[in-house]
Amino acid sequence: MAQVNDHYLKLQAGYLFPEISRRVNTFVEAHPEADVIRLGIGDVTEPLPEAVVAAMHTAVDEMGHRDTFRGYGPEQGYEFLRETLAREAFGSRGVEVSADEIFISDGSKCDTGNILDIFGAENTVAVLDPVYPVYVDTNVMAGRTGNATPDGRFEGLVYLPVTAENDFIAPLPDRPVDLAYLCYPNNPTGTVATRETLTAWVEFARANDTILLFDAAYEAYITDPDIPHSIYEIEGAREVAIEFRSFSKNAGFTGIRCACTVIPHELTGSTPAGERVEVHRLWNRRHSTKFNGVSYPVQRGAEAAYSPEGREQVAALISFYLENARLLREGLEAVGITVYGGVNAPYVWLKTPGGLDSWTFFDQLLEQAHLVGTPGSGFGAAGEGYFRLSAFNTRHNVKDAVRRFQQLVA
Amino acid sequence: MAQVNDHYLKLQAGYLFPEISRRVNTFVEAHPEADVIRLGIGDVTEPLPEAVVAAMHTAVDEMGHRDTFRGYGPEQGYEFLRETLAREAFGSRGVEVSADEIFISDGSKCDTGNILDIFGAENTVAVLDPVYPVYVDTNVMAGRTGNATPDGRFEGLVYLPVTAENDFIAPLPDRPVDLAYLCYPNNPTGTVATRETLTAWVEFARANDTILLFDAAYEAYITDPDIPHSIYEIEGAREVAIEFRSFSKNAGFTGIRCACTVIPHELTGSTPAGERVEVHRLWNRRHSTKFNGVSYPVQRGAEAAYSPEGREQVAALISFYLENARLLREGLEAVGITVYGGVNAPYVWLKTPGGLDSWTFFDQLLEQAHLVGTPGSGFGAAGEGYFRLSAFNTRHNVKDAVRRFQQLVA
Repeated sequence: MAQVNDHYLKLQAGYLFPEISRRVNTFVEAHPEADVIRLGIGDVTEPLPEAVVAAMHTAVDEMGHRDTFRGYGPEQGYEFLRETLAREAFGSRGVEVSADEIFISDGSKCDTGNILDIFGAENTVAVLDPVYPVYVDTNVMAGRTGNATPDGRFEGLVYLPVTAENDFIAPLPDRPVDLAYLCYPNNPTGTVATRETLTAWVEFARANDTILLFDAAYEAYITDPDIPHSIYEIEGAREVAIEFRSFSKNAGFTGIRCACTVIPHELTGSTPAGERVEVHRLWNRRHSTKFNGVSYPVQRGAEAAYSPEGREQVAALISFYLENARLLREGLEAVGITVYGGVNAPYVWLKTPGGLDSWTFFDQLLEQAHLVGTPGSGFGAAGEGYFRLSAFNTRHNVKDAVRRFQQLVA
Repeated sequence: MAQVNDHYLKLQAGYLFPEISRRVNTFVEAHPEADVIRLGIGDVTEPLPEAVVAAMHTAVDEMGHRDTFRGYGPEQGYEFLRETLAREAFGSRGVEVSADEIFISDGSKCDTGNILDIFGAENTVAVLDPVYPVYVDTNVMAGRTGNATPDGRFEGLVYLPVTAENDFIAPLPDRPVDLAYLCYPNNPTGTVATRETLTAWVEFARANDTILLFDAAYEAYITDPDIPHSIYEIEGAREVAIEFRSFSKNAGFTGIRCACTVIPHELTGSTPAGERVEVHRLWNRRHSTKFNGVSYPVQRGAEAAYSPEGREQVAALISFYLENARLLREGLEAVGITVYGGVNAPYVWLKTPGGLDSWTFFDQLLEQAHLVGTPGSGFGAAGEGYFRLSAFNTRHNVKDAVRRFQQLVA
């Protein structure tokens, strides 16, 4: 009798983003004339950089001619892209990462979920709270948790609240944990981790034989020169950290799909018998057995994002969204709302006005201002009373959203 | 202490294709002047169909303009592609599959591996022998097997030999199994399953509550009008089968990456408590949590493979490779070699001449004829004494390969 993985049944039906869609669709059906502005899902709106478009056209043409056609590429990604990333994304910041430590993939969402394949079922896992829901859900699916509790948390996970009370500084776990997710610049709060905070985490990981899963999908938004872009800027991190990078939020690849995962050769985990095993070797086996490489034209597009023209065009995109973030942040502050993030990240995290709970504020904002955001409590129990606005939108929509927000609150 | 998934350590170091690469590279280094023809890995060599190239260019341009740019697509794939597949790949053969039962992905290798996520750890798994190694390895990695035995099999898996002795007809398991992989047209043997064989399998599955994992990656190569292209051409299959389709071997997408998995709503599995659960629901959860959709230009290219021009161009590709297969088959038969497959599939499966074991013949063929094929034993214990040749190559190379083969054997 074929049995299903019944850990899936522990997941609550109302996953955050589908629930938002459901409420928005219900509202739009009832008010078809309403001009709804969506600042919910963190999806880019600006077109691909010209350098990327040009490189993809060239690559598509290559695939159309016998003498330049390419079949299966290396599962780990083409050397041209791995070398480019090693040099431009890491080497240029003085970070030592070799091309063969970089695994090209079709998305950080995939990688942060799939990485769990190579770890044992008994590991204790820590997440920040609020948190990108994929980290939690994939652990539930993999059987590393118990059941959901009424506040939406799962038994067995170690939750680390990041709130205004601790200045959004990720607290170290009060017990040993085996895997810990860190996402900086942070989704959803838009806050960053200082060198001191990251150093404390690396030291904790080294002391406790913890592996850090460091999601740097938003590193391109860092404006403060003192904030590390990579966990490997911290001494000793190569022995304890995996880093996830993405082309989604810098080069606008959410619909094109390209990302990478870095696993230094020094990183090891333990067998139940206590033998040390290179994590790189396991991920390489997983990647070459359960994945077949990223589309060739996509890899050429990704490479072009690091060409001189590509870098300029990507920088312009980042500036554009950061200016949106500034408009949101300052526009909300002007009417007395307490706002976090939005300086080194494309997300603005705010205290709901009047102490409303997150979903009540969501409904009010939708019904009265026709604005869609993301309820903080959807990211975790400690996000209750907060709300996320995404800076990924047109300038016109962002300005309009600020006006509507101000009218609603004023 | 972070623990690794030590099931990975059960996998043998010498995975088939890397081992072939190793031997070929060693030979080429020692004989740099040798003109080696590679008929090993089943990778296409002809350029993309013109209709696909045109559609991808258009889509890349759309991504370069604000008003046509697309960010995240639906994780399950765009409706335009799901509808096209439902209509053209299934409906046109009288097979009832709805668009929402089709999940677009970046490859069948990924899907056949990832599908295991949604099934329980205790399931008993059956595979044909010889078999595409990914089915076995992903089960090992997921902990559904014991250790490797000296002949390369894994304890706990049910192996079903398909050899000349049973006319390559997949025998039904002699015990209940929970999951069973079938690949038809078959990789590696190039043989097909008749309607009668597939009907027997569907009846077995219905009687034993087995889920069939039916890999139809090579269905486009079927020339015999009586051979089913889809498992759903068999009555009752919608309740017991998942089908995997790919654009790799028909439209030449090995480097472009697109595939799909079909999960009918009628298909259910059991919880440990005996409750029935829709498998579609679980895969939808997995797909939307651990995957983020296929690149938009790739999906437009895949759609174009089913346009009137695209269909003609794909048909021409298939004919081209099938003619290669015919040349290989008849050329080998002409010198007294016993050959299977190669009529409804791009693979020719032969008995090694002189009863050599597969790897000895591999070495002989490489050293004396500068030809690379795939040792049958690399696909499983029952493949010993057989050898696979791929028809994916230029006409010139295939003709040359036949001549060399004939000289070696004659």
